Amino acid sequence: MPNLRLDPVTGRFVIVASNRAARPDEYRSSNHDVPTATGCPFCPGHEADTPTAVITYPPRRSAVESQNWQVRVVPNLYPAVYPESSDGHVRPLSTERLFQQSPSLGVHEVLIESPRHVRSISDQTVEEASLVFCAYRDRMLAMRQTDALAWALIFKNVGEAAGASLEHIHSQLTGLHNVPPEIRQELNNAENYFRKNHSCLFCEINRREVQCRDRIVMKTPNFVAFCPFFSRNAYETWILPWDHCSHFERTGDNLLPELARIVHFCVSRIETAAHCRAYNYFIHSAPFDTEAAAHYHWHLEIIPRTAMIGGFEWGTGCFINTVPPEEAAARLRESEPAPVIAE
Amino acid sequence: MPNLRLDPVTGRFVIVASNRAARPDEYRSSNHDVPTATGCPFCPGHEADTPTAVITYPPRRSAVESQNWQVRVVPNLYPAVYPESSDGHVRPLSTERLFQQSPSLGVHEVLIESPRHVRSISDQTVEEASLVFCAYRDRMLAMRQTDALAWALIFKNVGEAAGASLEHIHSQLTGLHNVPPEIRQELNNAENYFRKNHSCLFCEINRREVQCRDRIVMKTPNFVAFCPFFSRNAYETWILPWDHCSHFERTGDNLLPELARIVHFCVSRIETAAHCRAYNYFIHSAPFDTEAAAHYHWHLEIIPRTAMIGGFEWGTGCFINTVPPEEAAARLRESEPAPVIAE
Repeated sequence: MPNLRLDPVTGRFVIVASNRAARPDEYRSSNHDVPTATGCPFCPGHEADTPTAVITYPPRRSAVESQNWQVRVVPNLYPAVYPESSDGHVRPLSTERLFQQSPSLGVHEVLIESPRHVRSISDQTVEEASLVFCAYRDRMLAMRQTDALAWALIFKNVGEAAGASLEHIHSQLTGLHNVPPEIRQELNNAENYFRKNHSCLFCEINRREVQCRDRIVMKTPNFVAFCPFFSRNAYETWILPWDHCSHFERTGDNLLPELARIVHFCVSRIETAAHCRAYNYFIHSAPFDTEAAAHYHWHLEIIPRTAMIGGFEWGTGCFINTVPPEEAAARLRESEPAPVIAE
Repeated sequence: MPNLRLDPVTGRFVIVASNRAARPDEYRSSNHDVPTATGCPFCPGHEADTPTAVITYPPRRSAVESQNWQVRVVPNLYPAVYPESSDGHVRPLSTERLFQQSPSLGVHEVLIESPRHVRSISDQTVEEASLVFCAYRDRMLAMRQTDALAWALIFKNVGEAAGASLEHIHSQLTGLHNVPPEIRQELNNAENYFRKNHSCLFCEINRREVQCRDRIVMKTPNFVAFCPFFSRNAYETWILPWDHCSHFERTGDNLLPELARIVHFCVSRIETAAHCRAYNYFIHSAPFDTEAAAHYHWHLEIIPRTAMIGGFEWGTGCFINTVPPEEAAARLRESEPAPVIAE
């Protein structure tokens, strides 16, 4: 069972999960170039290769799963966090001074985003992607209503360089019992900024980016996409709602297609401009313990995996970015979007 | 000129260095499998392809460089930090509320570790590696005596997956004007531990690891190597001096061969046991503003690059390690070392 350990030197947590070593890895086996549905556990007809779906879109009518789904959410077969400890009790971190540990508790789900064996959101239509964002929102709402969960992360790994082990388009959702230290730090920084300046840090960043225009990639009525002034990575792109909103799960049905469209646009442009088909994205949203927070603003960060992380980054925590965000944004505005690949 | 930018959301610094995009990348050009000296700027006879050496081992007798060197330290041709700002003055971070930046100042050197075109410390003899650790120590001492520098990092990238762009065995040394926030955090944690427990956190970790034995890889009279309880990565290995010492640059000549031997041993074992030829290592040492610190203990961290970093790690700062350090250490103790490859 996965184990949560505290590093007393840095204050970081680590999850030791030997069960995840057993997961299948398409990228380390055969030919990477040609997408293949043969044996893919996420393709229709292979529903029995994963745990039973928590939910499907459209909703199924019986307990028995059919092959008739557009999006399918299943428990992760190789979870980094487990719903409960083996003895059925949630245990706190051990009080041992030096080496603190506890069971790694939470919920770990996989969202299979299409019955088609495609790899990236740029291979989907905006309509297909909208349904995925609807599933994200619904599952976050469900996690919010789960008593033990304090915070959840939606994330996506596309391509071997981004840590994906399966090619078929999917995302993951982890609901955690505690807010990770790095997120706690971000929340504290945002709260301090709010106390000092009486405004949301993210709302101010939005306004400044739109004002100066240099780093803007796209603006829609309700969202803005830009390469942040402090981008760690070449072509890093953030997407934020324009109106202040702390919790992603409060996103209304009416906004989901617009959100899907701007993410689809940015990823397509990044893939073309950066010549890079590997990326991660994740959504940072406020913890579940409040209805709304004036100081925090949910956002989606796209991290193109154009460069490997080196010893300087490991040793200092400071990233070296060789493409200034002003240049990256200009290229993303100008480049042609990658074509939507038909089935 | 590289630019240091502050991320107000996380408190992280980023270096934007478009000059580094121009550096040569052997891994993105031709055949990776066969080491080749043709055109390698670090091979003897190509001294003019790099800036003039700051120092060579053995020391040279004239300003003109010969091909007769074992280790050669040169300014980095594509530095992430520059010795001074273009107008000759060190400028503080701008006082702008949202987007703070300053010139990225410091010293960035490359240590070419052998005249032979080999790639890893495991390809060297322990005697050759000893000379490299002597150069590390000497250059740290020199940086310590440079007024503007507050802290320095020695680091090494081996293999494409570890962020190396050239194959010929080398390390890098960056002297910085400020202690990075992540290191400041580590220093603070260590200081808090010392205040509370009246002992050095690292000395206690050393003692506990030797006592419990499970995670020990090797112990020599003056050093100990183990896979930390809180390893972020499979086969991550830390090497610490047994006697308390805060500053790496205080390591005496008598200890350098022993240090080289234990690092050589650990890397050789990791390459065999983890089937992984890409790794980073770096040395964490106390800032230059004190002679000695009772709460900090220098250490070398080896990070084998067995897995790609995914969206969970990017989104939470929490790593998932699929090989428990207890298992990793057992395999490192048992596996055969990689053979030393002759020229």
